[in-house]
Amino acid sequence: MKVDGVPYRTIWPADDGWSVEIIDQTQLPHEFVVVQLRGWQDAVRAIRDMLVRGAPLIGVTGAYGICLAMHEDPSDEMLEKAAAQLRSARPTAVNLAWAIDHMATELAPLDAPARETAAYKLAAEVAEDDVESCRLIGVNGAELIREAANRKSTPGPINILTHCNAGWLATVDHGTALSPIYAAHDAGIPVHVWVDETRPRNQGASLTAWELGRHGVPHTLIADNTGGHLMQNGMVDLCITGTDRTAANGDVCNKIGTYLKALAASDNNIPFYVALPHSTIDWTVDDGVADIPIEQRGAEEVTEIAGRLSDGSVATVSLAPEGTRAANYAFDVTPARLVTGLVTERGVCPASSQGLLTLYPERASGGE
Amino acid sequence: MKVDGVPYRTIWPADDGWSVEIIDQTQLPHEFVVVQLRGWQDAVRAIRDMLVRGAPLIGVTGAYGICLAMHEDPSDEMLEKAAAQLRSARPTAVNLAWAIDHMATELAPLDAPARETAAYKLAAEVAEDDVESCRLIGVNGAELIREAANRKSTPGPINILTHCNAGWLATVDHGTALSPIYAAHDAGIPVHVWVDETRPRNQGASLTAWELGRHGVPHTLIADNTGGHLMQNGMVDLCITGTDRTAANGDVCNKIGTYLKALAASDNNIPFYVALPHSTIDWTVDDGVADIPIEQRGAEEVTEIAGRLSDGSVATVSLAPEGTRAANYAFDVTPARLVTGLVTERGVCPASSQGLLTLYPERASGGE
Repeated sequence: MKVDGVPYRTIWPADDGWSVEIIDQTQLPHEFVVVQLRGWQDAVRAIRDMLVRGAPLIGVTGAYGICLAMHEDPSDEMLEKAAAQLRSARPTAVNLAWAIDHMATELAPLDAPARETAAYKLAAEVAEDDVESCRLIGVNGAELIREAANRKSTPGPINILTHCNAGWLATVDHGTALSPIYAAHDAGIPVHVWVDETRPRNQGASLTAWELGRHGVPHTLIADNTGGHLMQNGMVDLCITGTDRTAANGDVCNKIGTYLKALAASDNNIPFYVALPHSTIDWTVDDGVADIPIEQRGAEEVTEIAGRLSDGSVATVSLAPEGTRAANYAFDVTPARLVTGLVTERGVCPASSQGLLTLYPERASGGE
Repeated sequence: MKVDGVPYRTIWPADDGWSVEIIDQTQLPHEFVVVQLRGWQDAVRAIRDMLVRGAPLIGVTGAYGICLAMHEDPSDEMLEKAAAQLRSARPTAVNLAWAIDHMATELAPLDAPARETAAYKLAAEVAEDDVESCRLIGVNGAELIREAANRKSTPGPINILTHCNAGWLATVDHGTALSPIYAAHDAGIPVHVWVDETRPRNQGASLTAWELGRHGVPHTLIADNTGGHLMQNGMVDLCITGTDRTAANGDVCNKIGTYLKALAASDNNIPFYVALPHSTIDWTVDDGVADIPIEQRGAEEVTEIAGRLSDGSVATVSLAPEGTRAANYAFDVTPARLVTGLVTERGVCPASSQGLLTLYPERASGGE
């Protein structure tokens, strides 16, 4: 999408033909910094330290990490070592493991000298697949926004609430939850986005607000506590979020707090959509609420926060009494019953086993 | 309650016999500072700039503001002027208007020379009434915690989730929502409190965590997004919050985000109690969701936050891209259907007109 009029992606091969460039998302929204990855360990660090985040982008970064390893040394040993370390750079993201396994499986049978070229080709395919998936999610989801606009009897834009960042910064381009919003906005449908700040890491305030603003989409930042009041008072037409992991029954594991917004949407009869590429569907999990483990992160993400001082420098401040214990569950699971529909690259379906199998019939096993 | 073993209230007459001392709550949790109010304008500023906050404490501060005015000049003109300016120092708090009207009504008929002594006596009564109300809320609410402890089949403390600060810092002593928790803790019932940080003003992280910690009550700070996940996973035994304004039908207007927690409690069959002194009941409002106006505050409370730098000084940092628009609704209304019970100084009742009239039969009008 655009940054002040200039089209960008979140990751791209550099002009030198072998290194890889990314946007350092830890610097946003205060600074727009492009970082060059010159070795596979740079890719490990970029994933681990969250210079890149968002399941799809993490997967593509992992794929390019394999490219950098093959550029350095196309041996079996290197392929195994780089794959192992890249795979474990973030524990939860299913796309990362998938992308690494895909690269390793395709490259291992090749003669070493052929691996580097093949790797860059494969990584580019993984990236292009993601871009096309996200673009199609946008096309399919924009229809829902258009229908809401046609239904709406009061003047003004369609008000859409989103949580966390599932925008182009979380993917290679377009995004998942934000892709329909960009598509609707670019098609001239008037939209306005309520952006949950998304404590504790504030991806809404720092990333979603930044990318919507740079692309020119009207939006208003709110504390995470606010959505219920807005929905109760007719100020939200629909909600749309992403998902980090989607169970086969339609339960969605997404950023902590998503469940609370889904409850409020349900209580006020507001559609609650979840946008996802098929790569986030975990067909092995039948009951998301019971069986998806929830990552816990450091307490300091709750007790401290970084921001811009008046002199423009970035500083971290402590928010709580010294020594306060904090808990930091990173995700929660929204039961399928609260989800109006899943928006995928193949279309929109009910959040249920049956709904998902309608879109992905190849997953139906004959014996059941 | 206690601050590291020493009993404190939030406001008290100073040893000089006429000035008034308060805890400057804008300095918490970083510094514990006692401020002396030496004139009625000091009281106006303390209320307006939120050195004192919480409806009951604001009311008592208003009453002592009248004392300071009468100490300076016990004339009719001064009584009227001070009453008018104190009453308008905060727009929403019903206790403030009540306390000022009460003082003015009692003092106006007296001869000027008698007013100063009478004012201090009246203000002390208002303060003692609040302390006794809050103490009784604690007694009544602690029974609910004791019952939960008796019901609980798994080991460990009773886990109680609270939102915002309705502790002793919001009143003269004991608090409203936290009073039952202090009473249970002091009675030896093992309790653990999940403290919502309560964005955007972070009263949970800065005030609730501070006062629980200083009194020695085990607690864990969480982002506001977290409560739904905890409730879904059996980690919350009951919720208890305060209320800024309670409608006659049992709807409660409290800090923004309360509604979301009540939805999660309802979805997981967890009791959701609201604690209140009768002074917060607005008998003129029959439908809280429809008719209680919601105060909007400055956007900078969302886009900026203050905290402690590593050198111990306090600084404000910006969290969002420059120029980001933000909305800041300060309260929301939780419908009575989501509230398990109202805990008052007279006992616990259902959140309904009938429930409230059972405890406050003097409010039942014969004609209805």
